[in-house]
Amino acid sequence: MYKVYGDMLSGNCYKIKLLMTFLEIDHEWIHVDILAGETHQDNFTDMNSNAKIPVLQINDSEYLSESNAILNYLAEETSFLPDSGLQRARVLQWQFFEQYSHEPYIAVARYIKKYLGLPDDRVVEFESKQQGGHKALSIIEQQLGETDFLIGNTPTIADISLYAYTHVAHEGGFDLQDYPNIRKWFSRIESLPNYVMMDRANG
Amino acid sequence: MYKVYGDMLSGNCYKIKLLMTFLEIDHEWIHVDILAGETHQDNFTDMNSNAKIPVLQINDSEYLSESNAILNYLAEETSFLPDSGLQRARVLQWQFFEQYSHEPYIAVARYIKKYLGLPDDRVVEFESKQQGGHKALSIIEQQLGETDFLIGNTPTIADISLYAYTHVAHEGGFDLQDYPNIRKWFSRIESLPNYVMMDRANG
Repeated sequence: MYKVYGDMLSGNCYKIKLLMTFLEIDHEWIHVDILAGETHQDNFTDMNSNAKIPVLQINDSEYLSESNAILNYLAEETSFLPDSGLQRARVLQWQFFEQYSHEPYIAVARYIKKYLGLPDDRVVEFESKQQGGHKALSIIEQQLGETDFLIGNTPTIADISLYAYTHVAHEGGFDLQDYPNIRKWFSRIESLPNYVMMDRANG
Repeated sequence: MYKVYGDMLSGNCYKIKLLMTFLEIDHEWIHVDILAGETHQDNFTDMNSNAKIPVLQINDSEYLSESNAILNYLAEETSFLPDSGLQRARVLQWQFFEQYSHEPYIAVARYIKKYLGLPDDRVVEFESKQQGGHKALSIIEQQLGETDFLIGNTPTIADISLYAYTHVAHEGGFDLQDYPNIRKWFSRIESLPNYVMMDRANG
């Protein structure tokens, strides 16, 4: 059985939980406390030398890290990942967009506000994240004006990747009032069978 | 025929050129001048609303962005990308590592130093990139102590993704003297058939 090392309140970890519940993949969830430094302990860095959650344990000796790599691994040969060609590459296009142009703004702003309590010495950094975050949101909003999900009219792991931090963007100070397509897309995802909320009780 | 919009001196663009020459894929290279603002002009944002190079033009109406998504698209069914399973996911693990934990340090430090000339108001940011860059280099160094290439003993697009900015890391102030495995890996990649240097004359 798979083991997942993560924290349900981290969007990167929640992605994995969401796909696994959608696909009804059996797994054990092992909570990791980042703020207590657990990702920097030897037993963790032996699994991922980059000291980041989530980590998927596949068997006694094999581990996979990077949330979007894990999603691609688990979604192979399911409806959440096109077989090949341009549609499959578009999933990756959105996932790389997420890691480079979305997460560093929206997730980091949320981390500073929600977890660190917006301390004085991080206010400038927090504010510097707003413009990039809104740029990312506007790109998603535009796509969702054309299609119900990011890659056409059925959900893929691209939606899971972008939904994870977007649906809690308000916790990073991003008002989603001006993004109606994104809010409708939230409802579509939240009404999929087996949807699970981002809550440690569901970890 | 594919068209690639990019700048050969950008590691993200050079990745595409390198794979295309390794695989002998016919293409036209169209130089885009970032510093002149060309990625923010309408004819560019119509191709990629995120206003970033590289962009692959597939046909009259279809474009793909995000360097690593383009590599996955072009490498499918070649020796540079395992068919499926854990090996294929490991390629993505390295590519997401590259975009989140490597490029934002090494490529950004290089950009500030090489292209902007390390202006006074960017010195603090430049210096803040050094620790994260060395952490990324040490993770690559560790893997290359175990295998000749990142995913075993044959080159994949994971190597292309990481090679692109690592082989010019010195331009960002990173001394590679203490990374012997990385330097040997450079030689392995540079001796592959059809290797092309990062030079605008080769664009």
